[in-house]
Amino acid sequence: MSLIANTPKPPYYAVIFTSHRTPDDNGYGEIALRMEELAAQQPGFLGVEAAREELGITVSYWSSLEAIKNWKANDEHLQAQKNGRESWYSDFTVRICKVERDYCL
Amino acid sequence: MSLIANTPKPPYYAVIFTSHRTPDDNGYGEIALRMEELAAQQPGFLGVEAAREELGITVSYWSSLEAIKNWKANDEHLQAQKNGRESWYSDFTVRICKVERDYCL
Repeated sequence: MSLIANTPKPPYYAVIFTSHRTPDDNGYGEIALRMEELAAQQPGFLGVEAAREELGITVSYWSSLEAIKNWKANDEHLQAQKNGRESWYSDFTVRICKVERDYCL
Repeated sequence: MSLIANTPKPPYYAVIFTSHRTPDDNGYGEIALRMEELAAQQPGFLGVEAAREELGITVSYWSSLEAIKNWKANDEHLQAQKNGRESWYSDFTVRICKVERDYCL
């Protein structure tokens, strides 16, 4: 099964979340899974792709900037973002992008 | 040391390359490293981030669409792209994006 997101024809939006984890678990695994599940229920969600080695990269895809803004303001997600800043990540960058073109193998 | 790319103030561009590998090695590891080294020498290159688990994600950052186009047309890179399509990847998607906004921890 391909884990590559099956996104529609561009334009659409991507949020690239690149991070380094701290050694603290503190509920991380469970809440990370819950956030993927919850994101997938949001209006405008198009898909998500993730991999982690030393660096972690999660890219979520959205139909509009409005959809990204609404997901960022979701109550349960706000609590997870707070835990992320305070405990799970030693460093992260979030990039909000407009996907202008795509192609596949 | 952080592996998060130290990119300038937006706007700039991102190429999100998401892939599944075949079991074939066929020079992959060596050429993947060479492509990172060669990409970093191209005009307009801003940085690269990569992680692979079941899925592989490589995001490279560029100053312009022109810089991305020139890198795609690089002779040595064209040969690597050919090997990628024919041998190394069972599936991939490339997404060309404009980074409109970013923020850090």
